[in-house]
Amino acid sequence: MILRPATPQDWDAIWSILEPIIRAGETYTYPRDMSPEAAKKVWMESPRQTYVALIGETIVGTYYLKSNQTGGGDHVCNCGYMVAESAQGQGVATAMYRHSEEEARGFGYRAMQFNFVIETNTRAIALWERLGFATVGRLPGAFQHPRLGYVDARIMYKTLTNKREHL
Amino acid sequence: MILRPATPQDWDAIWSILEPIIRAGETYTYPRDMSPEAAKKVWMESPRQTYVALIGETIVGTYYLKSNQTGGGDHVCNCGYMVAESAQGQGVATAMYRHSEEEARGFGYRAMQFNFVIETNTRAIALWERLGFATVGRLPGAFQHPRLGYVDARIMYKTLTNKREHL
Repeated sequence: MILRPATPQDWDAIWSILEPIIRAGETYTYPRDMSPEAAKKVWMESPRQTYVALIGETIVGTYYLKSNQTGGGDHVCNCGYMVAESAQGQGVATAMYRHSEEEARGFGYRAMQFNFVIETNTRAIALWERLGFATVGRLPGAFQHPRLGYVDARIMYKTLTNKREHL
Repeated sequence: MILRPATPQDWDAIWSILEPIIRAGETYTYPRDMSPEAAKKVWMESPRQTYVALIGETIVGTYYLKSNQTGGGDHVCNCGYMVAESAQGQGVATAMYRHSEEEARGFGYRAMQFNFVIETNTRAIALWERLGFATVGRLPGAFQHPRLGYVDARIMYKTLTNKREHL
């Protein structure tokens, strides 16, 4: 698997990964009817850096990395990850996370924070726990799931200043 | 005390409240060297609504109200409040909070979330607890305090769907 920074030419492939996830509305708080232009802004333009994961020549995953706050909070980063449905179960998310942690350390971030991990996204929660994240907060009823109604969201956090664990 | 939506003409008075708080950098994550233009954008332009509190004809406080997330998270709002140093201890923050809760209910929000209440801001924490907020999360070392180094930040949350309490 190759991980590299995204280029503007990657956008169509990135959007083909994002669109079904955004339209499903079960794992992210993006509006389900979000336009490609709005998605491009939040995924490609606002973050500090956006990356793609390739198997062969096919883009199978993408993530962004940004500061979670400005000012006195700008040493904590935030990332968002999406994997193509056709590439599930091949370790793409884990590979992207490992890459993102190295990138975050390289930028000098001291921690990574996920602001909104939806309680029903059990696969993501299990993955983040396996990769060293702790649940540091719970937001009661903070997400309206399209099928399940109001569900909780977690805040998950990992300190990066200690020695690298073997991931 | 009068609470009303801010107008563009209020900006100079609002900035005179914001500037010393931003420059001190002890209670918000705005960059300490933030320009007035950047502050105007985040405080006056990006939020759903901005308000001012007046004693007589003097603006003594200001707050903004916005959705904390989009999509499936857009039923939870977020507010930020600042009080002029010269008006401390006169109940301005409490009056603004009461007003903001009514406004939030009027907009149909089901909860209010504060994403980053810095642990050393004990006056704010005591106020939010008195007004019904619970600490639902703790971010270890997430804030670099200009005098005290890395300190924790809290996530505080209040559900608004139950019966109004007597505030």
